[in-house]
Amino acid sequence: MPLSSRIESAINAAIQIGEARPAPPKLASALRYGVTPGGARIRPTILTSVALACGDDRPGMTDAAAAALELVHCASLVHDDLPCFDNADTRRGKKTVHLAYSEPLAVLTGDSLIVLAFDVLARAGVEDPARALELVKILSTRTGSPYGICAGQGWESETDVNLSAYHQAKTGALFIAATQMGAVAAGQEAEPWFELGARIGEAFQVADDLRDALYDAETLGKPAGQDELNARPNAVTELGVQGAVTRLKDILGGAIASIPSCPGEASLAKMVQMTAQKLTPVAPVPGE
Amino acid sequence: MPLSSRIESAINAAIQIGEARPAPPKLASALRYGVTPGGARIRPTILTSVALACGDDRPGMTDAAAAALELVHCASLVHDDLPCFDNADTRRGKKTVHLAYSEPLAVLTGDSLIVLAFDVLARAGVEDPARALELVKILSTRTGSPYGICAGQGWESETDVNLSAYHQAKTGALFIAATQMGAVAAGQEAEPWFELGARIGEAFQVADDLRDALYDAETLGKPAGQDELNARPNAVTELGVQGAVTRLKDILGGAIASIPSCPGEASLAKMVQMTAQKLTPVAPVPGE
Repeated sequence: MPLSSRIESAINAAIQIGEARPAPPKLASALRYGVTPGGARIRPTILTSVALACGDDRPGMTDAAAAALELVHCASLVHDDLPCFDNADTRRGKKTVHLAYSEPLAVLTGDSLIVLAFDVLARAGVEDPARALELVKILSTRTGSPYGICAGQGWESETDVNLSAYHQAKTGALFIAATQMGAVAAGQEAEPWFELGARIGEAFQVADDLRDALYDAETLGKPAGQDELNARPNAVTELGVQGAVTRLKDILGGAIASIPSCPGEASLAKMVQMTAQKLTPVAPVPGE
Repeated sequence: MPLSSRIESAINAAIQIGEARPAPPKLASALRYGVTPGGARIRPTILTSVALACGDDRPGMTDAAAAALELVHCASLVHDDLPCFDNADTRRGKKTVHLAYSEPLAVLTGDSLIVLAFDVLARAGVEDPARALELVKILSTRTGSPYGICAGQGWESETDVNLSAYHQAKTGALFIAATQMGAVAAGQEAEPWFELGARIGEAFQVADDLRDALYDAETLGKPAGQDELNARPNAVTELGVQGAVTRLKDILGGAIASIPSCPGEASLAKMVQMTAQKLTPVAPVPGE
């Protein structure tokens, strides 16, 4: 099975748990709406690639970890789009959950997806409770506060921002979770995989800044120019477009160099390279 | 240590994880604000009482379970109070989190508290991963959809409501989690403890309906008459005040009869009896 089909199948199995009877029908429908069709599924792809590079000796555990991570990511998008945050109308080219359903259902969809992520890990744990519990620990650390995406979003309510903590929590956290959970799902230690995740996260942040500055809303599938509008820190403002592109390439080179020794090291390096190509903006760059 | 101090101490240890550096200061402060000072801490009290009745052979696991359950309960209060749900100004006699901080911080506080609950269980799991993972499974089932408090809240967005699923998910879920997590934390099976939790949940719902109908906002520490205002199903509307009081006593009698055989069965029955007294409204009842 190609990697993308494997991941979609794992995500679909996870959503089915949350929407099973006797779930309230609108919430059940909103759960699926918030998770499908997906974007690039970049976090679970990284997670599964790392697990494969480490031998993937428990595929069920890898699939659960990949699905759990994507559910948390989708939950964060649903809550970030709410009127009190980005107040976004569109996401992935369709109405945001609070517009398609309602604001209460959007809050509940995010909450339910977060919880479902831990449910999926607990169910997979029958195979190996210690490994599953380590996955719970990594995912909770990188989702909550002080190291997770909740803390990252929380920094946007501060006037005096710890920029390093902000960036690592806001964008880095789920990439760190991706590499560490992939390794742990395949029976390896989490710690050596921190750096790869952190570097991919930095690269993603710079790429996102470039896209936000260069693309229009139609191409993005969400409102453009949000960083400038909300006065958020941005690599393009800091380095200019060409500087940001150079920085993106440097970070990804460092990411590849940081890959721990493992059976699938070479193919993992290739995956990071492909991620780099996907990330680098291809739209006409003004002034170039 | 008295039970209440043991529970507060476990909750305090849990909050400290979420507010540790480098957490964004306002979010860290809002986490503590949303959890302290507590109400009756009735769910963790039931959980710990069940664990004690079952021998409490791993007190660290019991404390983690009690804290995790209360964090989820507090998270649900923070989100339920949001403008898009109850739009409540006060909770436990002070401003609700979205008024004291902001709406974005209230959404993030709820999210972070849910995640912190699973983090706490994962950390406690070093002692016994299989037991901790079972706690994760019970808590996620009773928090998310289709059987948890998210689903319960989700039913309030439906026109055609499955009343039995609604009540069990909305109010029963965290009491079922309380009895089952208490048993599992002490190394017992979860299943025999379902009924006690479900019956305490029913009793609590009837008691809450009575309080909502009979008390004013100052006594409640939150807005009164919300059920009538929001046209929610209510035992007082259905049975009248006296009928609801009788029903409350019947349910609690059934709860005591359902307690599984365990070393501390007698003292657990006493705890349920005390809970009953706490729950039964003591305010002057109109027409009596």
